[in-house]
Amino acid sequence: MIMMVLITYDVNTEDKAGRKRLRKVAKHCLNYGLRVQNSVFECNVNQKEYVELQHILSNEIDESKDSLRFYLLGNNYKNKIIHIGAKPSFVVTEPLIF
Amino acid sequence: MIMMVLITYDVNTEDKAGRKRLRKVAKHCLNYGLRVQNSVFECNVNQKEYVELQHILSNEIDESKDSLRFYLLGNNYKNKIIHIGAKPSFVVTEPLIF
Repeated sequence: MIMMVLITYDVNTEDKAGRKRLRKVAKHCLNYGLRVQNSVFECNVNQKEYVELQHILSNEIDESKDSLRFYLLGNNYKNKIIHIGAKPSFVVTEPLIF
Repeated sequence: MIMMVLITYDVNTEDKAGRKRLRKVAKHCLNYGLRVQNSVFECNVNQKEYVELQHILSNEIDESKDSLRFYLLGNNYKNKIIHIGAKPSFVVTEPLIF
């Protein structure tokens, strides 16, 4: 069963390593879903992919500095989301390296 | 009925006005809930407060530059949220002006 999972993260970008972690976390999330804000992704995944994604992302972040949150919205989420304001126009200025 | 609403936002902080909008949005959210990441709040509100909060926040942002998202998680959300990594320790360096 496919379900919507919201992923939000704060990655500490005070150093080069942090900026690299940020790019890698974003790149992984792009493989599973849609970027709706800078650090917010909406991903449609099944249970196996959900566990996989948690594993991949938790291996990318520095758990002492970064924060990663997953919100399981289920499969009946369309009327649970309201967006106000500008549509994100993501100009990836920095190459998403992997 | 009290329900959990997740609020995420991206405010364009390229200018002074944007940084002020950011502080005001955060300040309003703090009145309704818990800051869990830089631009992510978990708020327990009833329907009236939810509408009120949407109104207040949409009046604070610049809809052409900023993005505001509300996710209605309902009242059975505890096992829908996973957090990995650092707990946010919000040192408000800048005074939250209003």
